[in-house]
Amino acid sequence: MSSKNLHFVTLLGSLRKASVNGGVARALPALAPEGVKISPLDSVGDFPLYDADVQAAGFPQAAEAMGAAIAAADGVIVVSPEYNYSVPGVLKNAIDWISRLPSAPFRQKPILLQSASPGALGGARMQYHLRQTFVFLDARVFNTPEAMIGGAGGKFDSATGDLTDVGTKEFLSKQLAAFADFARRMN
Amino acid sequence: MSSKNLHFVTLLGSLRKASVNGGVARALPALAPEGVKISPLDSVGDFPLYDADVQAAGFPQAAEAMGAAIAAADGVIVVSPEYNYSVPGVLKNAIDWISRLPSAPFRQKPILLQSASPGALGGARMQYHLRQTFVFLDARVFNTPEAMIGGAGGKFDSATGDLTDVGTKEFLSKQLAAFADFARRMN
Amino acid sequence: MSSKNLHFVTLLGSLRKASVNGGVARALPALAPEGVKISPLDSVGDFPLYDADVQAAGFPQAAEAMGAAIAAADGVIVVSPEYNYSVPGVLKNAIDWISRLPSAPFRQKPILLQSASPGALGGARMQYHLRQTFVFLDARVFNTPEAMIGGAGGKFDSATGDLTDVGTKEFLSKQLAAFADFARRMN
Amino acid sequence: MSSKNLHFVTLLGSLRKASVNGGVARALPALAPEGVKISPLDSVGDFPLYDADVQAAGFPQAAEAMGAAIAAADGVIVVSPEYNYSVPGVLKNAIDWISRLPSAPFRQKPILLQSASPGALGGARMQYHLRQTFVFLDARVFNTPEAMIGGAGGKFDSATGDLTDVGTKEFLSKQLAAFADFARRMN
Repeated sequence: MSSKNLHFVTLLGSLRKASVNGGVARALPALAPEGVKISPLDSVGDFPLYDADVQAAGFPQAAEAMGAAIAAADGVIVVSPEYNYSVPGVLKNAIDWISRLPSAPFRQKPILLQSASPGALGGARMQYHLRQTFVFLDARVFNTPEAMIGGAGGKFDSATGDLTDVGTKEFLSKQLAAFADFARRMN
Repeated sequence: MSSKNLHFVTLLGSLRKASVNGGVARALPALAPEGVKISPLDSVGDFPLYDADVQAAGFPQAAEAMGAAIAAADGVIVVSPEYNYSVPGVLKNAIDWISRLPSAPFRQKPILLQSASPGALGGARMQYHLRQTFVFLDARVFNTPEAMIGGAGGKFDSATGDLTDVGTKEFLSKQLAAFADFARRMN
Repeated sequence: MSSKNLHFVTLLGSLRKASVNGGVARALPALAPEGVKISPLDSVGDFPLYDADVQAAGFPQAAEAMGAAIAAADGVIVVSPEYNYSVPGVLKNAIDWISRLPSAPFRQKPILLQSASPGALGGARMQYHLRQTFVFLDARVFNTPEAMIGGAGGKFDSATGDLTDVGTKEFLSKQLAAFADFARRMN
Repeated sequence: MSSKNLHFVTLLGSLRKASVNGGVARALPALAPEGVKISPLDSVGDFPLYDADVQAAGFPQAAEAMGAAIAAADGVIVVSPEYNYSVPGVLKNAIDWISRLPSAPFRQKPILLQSASPGALGGARMQYHLRQTFVFLDARVFNTPEAMIGGAGGKFDSATGDLTDVGTKEFLSKQLAAFADFARRMN
């Protein structure tokens, strides 16, 4: 396994300003192991609704830009809430666009899934649905430990969504180190 | 079981004009059993991307209108392609909006799932993900026979998406009759 | 909705004597609402491994007996651990046998799912896999509230598996009342 | 990527003598690329029903032997029917036993999934459930192309279960070559 520097990008599945998942994504750069840089992708809110007829006239700028950023990264960290026991439509819509790019940016790309929710399951159902999507896209999804942060009410600042819970930060830090090892093995 | 007249509405998961799933949805009214009327809901393309901050300022007109139409119907027929082994983001986005309406339009509502695709599986993976969403929404999803129309290439008009295959029409006609029985038992 | 008396049977997915899921199953009769009797089915440990060649020579007595008991009941409560993020093989094996009985005992049968586990998710992944099996068997699986009892370590007697947590008992009592309403509507 | 010789083992999920999945498993050695040897594991029919109390007294010989054979292999090819829209209990039972072995034989092991069925979906639903199990076991499951052999009635000898369809053999041959590449990258 090499020890080369890595650059991961975060794909955030929520548009809400005080989203706890946004709080997770913002916390990651400071929790990354040495040699790992983490930076956010643009917003999934920049994408139009997917329409194959629109695609036939050309990909939207948001899809081209996010696709290029994913292709250039050493791994993608998807941080997302669970909506209605599955993937938020707004996140899936962005993935649907990116999946059509001829460059296939997710192909063989290391992927880490993280989610937070007020309930006990912490977004688990969303993660297993996303895993199935990444089978089709032939990505390399990290397995365990899984980051499903339940009981978010007590772990985040309710006004800003910032992650405040020390134990959760420690867990995410360990998971990022394990994911960096995984990404180095996969590349 | 009563024999009262029923009104079903179709929720289409594709925006493409020549969509084969659009072709399925258009074929349904003529295939319905006596006493059953089927009409289309408005387009999922009318919805903005879901954002809880936007919702806090008021539901978009598309969500209010579709929610009211679903609440008034005796059942909903979801007809949708499968994108990336799951539910199209554009369809899930509409469901995410509707799910937040205080009126809970899907609650105890009979639901029928139909999908068509060029591949052999006919959208099966999309249907099982949607079923999980409808657990949370406490809908009543019809079980079998399932309408997963594979090999769509030979069963639809490639220019218009119109359903041309006689065997598929006969199957859908039988499934609609079984769903009407189910909806009458559930109501 | 009628108010007729109901008889539910419990199908336990674990063979371990001090199983916390066994503890859930044993607690249910005392938590049932008035007019509802709950009694255990025989053990899934009585079934041979499923083999279609063996079936061709005749169903084992365990399958015939459990199938008849399910057919006679007003609903089935499946109480099971999660093994390896899915349904225990030992439980699925019993269901595989019963599913082949010409009498189709699960058809249109109201089903309630319950699970307990030491982890935070409480068996959720097992329940969604079981739900998919019951689509094929055309059962009527109750939706919400779901009984996924996480953190079982502090809620059960570690020596016997008996359920000791008062809050969990209250929750199960409410869920049983809601399931009884559901079963009456389905019958 | 090295070009070292590989040894894969097949794990068969059916006990039926004329099983079409048995036919797939028997066909594989002759379809393997140069440098790849494929041999069958012992039968899942040799395992007792999983019981943690039995495990406490010692693992059964079948679990120890299959665990050792998997640990020694460069990859595992799971070939299995779908029962009731999920994994056969008899297969899951063997996996449940093996998963408890302290040696964790599936950890980081390359896995290939194959299934055949009379229906159009070819065992797809079983495969996605197995994938979720292998998340927990931290295996490395090959993504695409997927081997879901539908319409098995016309592709196998009905008396013996032997695979006769030339196109299916060609597909499996290509998939095995791609899996060998994957296994070499993962090891």
